[in-house]
Amino acid sequence: MPDSTLTAIHAVMARIRSQHPLIHCLTNNVVKGFTANVLLAIGAAPAMVEHPEEAREFAAMADALLINLGTLDESQMTAMRRAIPSALTAGKPWVLDPVAVGALGVRTRFAEEIIAHRPTVIRGNASEILALAGESGGGRGVDSGRDSQAARTAARALVAKTGATLLVTGAVDYVVDSSREFAISNGHPLLTRVTGVGCAMGAINAACLAVADSPGLASVATAVWLGVAGELAAKKSPHPGSFQIALLDALDAVDEATIRSLARFVESPRGPGFGGAA
Amino acid sequence: MPDSTLTAIHAVMARIRSQHPLIHCLTNNVVKGFTANVLLAIGAAPAMVEHPEEAREFAAMADALLINLGTLDESQMTAMRRAIPSALTAGKPWVLDPVAVGALGVRTRFAEEIIAHRPTVIRGNASEILALAGESGGGRGVDSGRDSQAARTAARALVAKTGATLLVTGAVDYVVDSSREFAISNGHPLLTRVTGVGCAMGAINAACLAVADSPGLASVATAVWLGVAGELAAKKSPHPGSFQIALLDALDAVDEATIRSLARFVESPRGPGFGGAA
Amino acid sequence: MPDSTLTAIHAVMARIRSQHPLIHCLTNNVVKGFTANVLLAIGAAPAMVEHPEEAREFAAMADALLINLGTLDESQMTAMRRAIPSALTAGKPWVLDPVAVGALGVRTRFAEEIIAHRPTVIRGNASEILALAGESGGGRGVDSGRDSQAARTAARALVAKTGATLLVTGAVDYVVDSSREFAISNGHPLLTRVTGVGCAMGAINAACLAVADSPGLASVATAVWLGVAGELAAKKSPHPGSFQIALLDALDAVDEATIRSLARFVESPRGPGFGGAA
Repeated sequence: MPDSTLTAIHAVMARIRSQHPLIHCLTNNVVKGFTANVLLAIGAAPAMVEHPEEAREFAAMADALLINLGTLDESQMTAMRRAIPSALTAGKPWVLDPVAVGALGVRTRFAEEIIAHRPTVIRGNASEILALAGESGGGRGVDSGRDSQAARTAARALVAKTGATLLVTGAVDYVVDSSREFAISNGHPLLTRVTGVGCAMGAINAACLAVADSPGLASVATAVWLGVAGELAAKKSPHPGSFQIALLDALDAVDEATIRSLARFVESPRGPGFGGAA
Repeated sequence: MPDSTLTAIHAVMARIRSQHPLIHCLTNNVVKGFTANVLLAIGAAPAMVEHPEEAREFAAMADALLINLGTLDESQMTAMRRAIPSALTAGKPWVLDPVAVGALGVRTRFAEEIIAHRPTVIRGNASEILALAGESGGGRGVDSGRDSQAARTAARALVAKTGATLLVTGAVDYVVDSSREFAISNGHPLLTRVTGVGCAMGAINAACLAVADSPGLASVATAVWLGVAGELAAKKSPHPGSFQIALLDALDAVDEATIRSLARFVESPRGPGFGGAA
Repeated sequence: MPDSTLTAIHAVMARIRSQHPLIHCLTNNVVKGFTANVLLAIGAAPAMVEHPEEAREFAAMADALLINLGTLDESQMTAMRRAIPSALTAGKPWVLDPVAVGALGVRTRFAEEIIAHRPTVIRGNASEILALAGESGGGRGVDSGRDSQAARTAARALVAKTGATLLVTGAVDYVVDSSREFAISNGHPLLTRVTGVGCAMGAINAACLAVADSPGLASVATAVWLGVAGELAAKKSPHPGSFQIALLDALDAVDEATIRSLARFVESPRGPGFGGAA
């Protein structure tokens, strides 16, 4: 692993643990509790402020904003329409998690609408990223019907169109921005047996954005941190109930030495690693 | 235990674990995360799509639909009114979980309205089943004030009126359809000390319906699977926090041999067991 | 510790475990599941009935009402406006948890509106209590920017203005009513690493109110029960995932002898302890 990138990843983790960035989550009803616990486990401070008027107020106060479309309804769409410009005006980053876009109509149109507000990061599985880029994703909702590799071309198109950094997740996670690409192969299949892990990944990414030097580094740090924690948790338990608990523990416990020994990523030839010469 | 019924129960479990049926849950705000984790633990794929327009789209795509009235509000009622006919038109089964019907007005009237759409299965405690059948249930909400045995006559009346299979749950669970009755006595009192176990039972039933040969078999498999998992979990922990986690683990871990050794049910003389001669 | 107060605290715990008071929770979307599990762990019966018409019905049936403003929206405000007078008319106590009041506009105005209905107990952190009393709290949401000691003067002003008993929570918890003050120093820092612990404290307080002889005793019992359980849980695990599960177990397991040996509180000279001569 490039040592400079590992050092930069650990610096992101250390800053979250010392600065406790406040993350405003407009996310789905299935995962709110788990998302909050994941953010607390990594050292961040979660807050879900949902009234449209308050969502506008709060997005300017928080350090980053997460927009997750999993259980979109009319009131939440109004809150998101107010929170996103408020975060942007205040100079705060925001993450779009386009859950099940492509499979369902309202959220697909809504994602097209808000993507014009230039999300800092878009995190999705291959189906969602293909659908966002205008290709048929083939998904039936939260499950990805496609390998994340298949979405790399679509991810590059979205980078060019939106200016966002893309985090495409699957058995291998890809981070794509305008100059670099990383493939991160940490993780464990049990991560797909716990509800909300993908959604929590968007929240971790928002927390990393609040303290990282670049969206690309924030996204690589997200994939490594969650993936390594998943590997540690899988050593504690082969079943999904106790794995979920071990995952929260591991997000809290994982230290620099463990990250250095377990992180597995490769950088594409498009550009230098984080922390390296530009 | 009738060996043919045990074989049929295990076949339902194996099919869920290999086919991962997609279950559309319109359920209450207290249990969404736990319900999703229970479905993932048994091998199914959960999705909560709540916008009324998307709920109609998605009900036709998913393999079964769960309607749980626990925290009913106007938007959810609209979503349910669109999802149920969509599922029926697409030939998909649906489960009604009439939480606290009888005790509260809006949901009691709403349950009467949607029951006309012929749910495949109705799962409730004795108070709820008595109330649905037009008798006074005596409940104050989610707690059943009555033994499930007391609701068997009401269950038979609902079978005749609606065509549904009934799963009446309590210390003993009863499955009643037009030709058969089963009494399943698996389970453990700690199952009542974790929120959402009854609600998750409706979700398991929806998953079993997606793969089983009959609603009666799906409902017996539900009661046995959850009940046996509860017994295994209670051996791991006498307290409700760790019991909840052990329950998710046990739903994942329980195998055919364990089901064969622990399942406890009796069949009434009204008809043959599942898998037996008709 | 004053033995009469310890005896009274244990009597509250024993009554909840034998009487299972039914607690109507109008609370936020992040913590509904955890709040229900905490109530079940202490022996109470949770119910979240949210439709405005049903919330009015149910508040009169339940034994106590919790109003938590964490994810306030218009529908929930309507439900709260109907539930509070219904509970009062039926002679039932209610708890106000003014989450993030002061930091955000809608909830600050709404808290001022409903406080006129004389909550039995107000539970908040220092920032929230200062804001409710009309002082600048300095909070950015759920985190308290101020020590709970700083809010004691504000708490006394709120007691005088509203007639409520105040439970001001932090590293030390303070209970203030018109004649007495207690400082409870049980607890553990890990309690701040699990989402919804503060919110669940409001729910425990509602359950204690349903069975206790006075709001002051109910509030002291709440702080001691949760704080001692947190200490026991921290001995089981240093990480937040397994700590959360151990906390639920400890709320269930803690007995009179443990309360007597671990409870740490002091009573101010303003008046006698609970159970002592008036």
